[in-house]
Amino acid sequence: MMNSAPRFSHYRCCLCGKEYSPDQAIYNCLIDGGNLDIILDLQQIRKGKSREAILSSSETSLWRYLPLLPVADPGYYGTTLRLAGGTPLLHPIQLEKQLGVHTLWIKDDGKNPSASFKDRASAVVVARAREIQASTVVTASTGNAGAALACMAAAIGQPAVIFTPKSAPPAKVAQLLVFGARVILVDGNYDSAFDLTIQAAHEFGWYCRNTGYNPFTVEGKKTAAFEIWEQALLRRTSQRPLVLCVSVGDGNIISGLHKGFKDLLELGWIDQLPRIIGVQSTGSAAIANAFHAGDENIIPVKADTLADSISVDLPRDGVRAIRAARQTGGSYLLVEDDAILQAISSLGKVGIFAEPAGATAFAGLQSAVTKGLVTPEDDVLVMNTGSGLKDIRAAMQAVTPAPVIDPDMNSLKKYLGV
Amino acid sequence: MMNSAPRFSHYRCCLCGKEYSPDQAIYNCLIDGGNLDIILDLQQIRKGKSREAILSSSETSLWRYLPLLPVADPGYYGTTLRLAGGTPLLHPIQLEKQLGVHTLWIKDDGKNPSASFKDRASAVVVARAREIQASTVVTASTGNAGAALACMAAAIGQPAVIFTPKSAPPAKVAQLLVFGARVILVDGNYDSAFDLTIQAAHEFGWYCRNTGYNPFTVEGKKTAAFEIWEQALLRRTSQRPLVLCVSVGDGNIISGLHKGFKDLLELGWIDQLPRIIGVQSTGSAAIANAFHAGDENIIPVKADTLADSISVDLPRDGVRAIRAARQTGGSYLLVEDDAILQAISSLGKVGIFAEPAGATAFAGLQSAVTKGLVTPEDDVLVMNTGSGLKDIRAAMQAVTPAPVIDPDMNSLKKYLGV
Repeated sequence: MMNSAPRFSHYRCCLCGKEYSPDQAIYNCLIDGGNLDIILDLQQIRKGKSREAILSSSETSLWRYLPLLPVADPGYYGTTLRLAGGTPLLHPIQLEKQLGVHTLWIKDDGKNPSASFKDRASAVVVARAREIQASTVVTASTGNAGAALACMAAAIGQPAVIFTPKSAPPAKVAQLLVFGARVILVDGNYDSAFDLTIQAAHEFGWYCRNTGYNPFTVEGKKTAAFEIWEQALLRRTSQRPLVLCVSVGDGNIISGLHKGFKDLLELGWIDQLPRIIGVQSTGSAAIANAFHAGDENIIPVKADTLADSISVDLPRDGVRAIRAARQTGGSYLLVEDDAILQAISSLGKVGIFAEPAGATAFAGLQSAVTKGLVTPEDDVLVMNTGSGLKDIRAAMQAVTPAPVIDPDMNSLKKYLGV
Repeated sequence: MMNSAPRFSHYRCCLCGKEYSPDQAIYNCLIDGGNLDIILDLQQIRKGKSREAILSSSETSLWRYLPLLPVADPGYYGTTLRLAGGTPLLHPIQLEKQLGVHTLWIKDDGKNPSASFKDRASAVVVARAREIQASTVVTASTGNAGAALACMAAAIGQPAVIFTPKSAPPAKVAQLLVFGARVILVDGNYDSAFDLTIQAAHEFGWYCRNTGYNPFTVEGKKTAAFEIWEQALLRRTSQRPLVLCVSVGDGNIISGLHKGFKDLLELGWIDQLPRIIGVQSTGSAAIANAFHAGDENIIPVKADTLADSISVDLPRDGVRAIRAARQTGGSYLLVEDDAILQAISSLGKVGIFAEPAGATAFAGLQSAVTKGLVTPEDDVLVMNTGSGLKDIRAAMQAVTPAPVIDPDMNSLKKYLGV
């Protein structure tokens, strides 16, 4: 199926350590269903003077990091597939002062082509799909992941099928349909859509993008870590580990960030990992619960939070998500929905419009400061995972309604009290 | 009021040619109310080796073009104010082939911080507001312009007031409020909000951003022309004039693009202007009507189109908008709302999610090809003025609803007919 030599060494199960050949068509571990890590050929990367190549590259998207990716250059210049990643790093001094931290950065992944972090995963998965000549890429999704797949697939004319619970907001479904994906609403929940996706992929020979199932999603998501390396780590002077706050739903984004920093550490391009703090809503806390119980045993919850992108009953990448915090001296924090709404407002007031899941990470930072987990000496980076335009209903809950006046100066002065 | 020397030569009325000093606090011509052009000091710019400075700048936002802007560097690094502009140029080969043009580029201004072209204007106006030490910036808006002002003002802690007709969609009002602007709903239409804004600005000493009134909005918008110069004009080989398709509402965007290219022509950095084709909805055709009547006499209409960003009764920058097409060998085209919806779908299928006003320009190109206004030898650039996430309701009209099935393989196979 491959039309070129594999660009990684092997797959390795995160639970039992079993290794699989890169030529194998495989998703999860065949023994215990564990998530598979993709292990790079570090020797090859070092030989290729990759660090110099990356740092001097004129490419600004995530394809800048091609030497560290397990796929070949997909081509398709001038399409939205080439625009994933490369998102801006903001430095809102007002919030930095309010929180009293040494440095506060916010990385705005709402600026991706389909307006969420998920484009990183979908770009790499779609590139992989082309490599293995997949006829169709399929995914289960309640929103962002589907939009990301639909957008990246549309960019290169790759057929895509998306299974979505029929309870999904019509607006999110509209975005999938605009991108020309074949959208099939399922009379069931996300888990039933997830299972049907896997069956359909198996039976029809479709390539399955499902988050926490396809090993390439993490490889796409790790590119955010590489950007943080260039945008923040290489430019700061502090020797303390960077603190990284990120919201957690199924656990795949935090696992992707962790993987990226591990790649950099193994290459010797960084000498310490950032402290990764995962933030969940109290209404969807399966991974945080397991973290604080001190083990890796994820007990599903009945999720209920307004941050729909991280509202997850059964996290599909929970074990690696726990390790992302545990192995980096990080932690897990829980925040209430009210704090998430307040965080939307706080970020908005410095010009950053975040979706609830993105604001969750900032709410977590506020909590971390209060608890003393983050100190005035710390440099902190908060990941905003998506644009607030993705969920205007939540934004409406975060603000006070505007007054109505008659269109004349008397009414205006009366309202202003002048 | 100014805290530095003026960075332009003078203002000049587009109707009577009367000139005003750059130190004067002025909006429209005091004699005939004509829009004022800001005239640069070209000699100064040439002396500064500005072309070389720009082409070698590491700045990627619109502040790259500071030598050609009438404001000083506003500072505020790390804020969204520094991220306006610098939007991607896409090259969707599928659509290029379908249309049968030599080259098709789409410039995606939905990637601006508040997700529309209007950020360009607001960034420069807010920079100007700081220069003249304005206490408050005010604007009338039904959506994008207000969001852009609110976002840019929030970025630097500049107080902003926005007057919006109370009929504005709650979702758009929510975005204004999230950015922390003082939003006042007016029990009247846009024109009454516009007039109230001017009165309030006058009485309270606020700085007024109103489109087609404040001369600095065009100066911000012209930066899109500069980006087109670098991204397209400098990189192509054809000697034919570039064809530029852009949707037109109040006429300020097309005037801004025209101004940018005129600046470049006067500097000798380009040797011909692009042919600028303005596209309006049949339901909001005041400027197109005047263009085809052969004069500059704008007769207001009762606007009714789903493309709300270009739904305008009384265009505030109509004369310059007519000249943008007339002085460049361009034209004006009208498209039906149905064609706009189809264009949303066509762009979506290559991964670009445009708001109706953005898709209008693409619908116009399709019409231009049919009419022979654009030929197979032409290089064409279509400006997408905003993200489709700004108007999900319109997107929902552009797609066919998705089917619903039970979450099992039998139901799926039945639906797929396999």
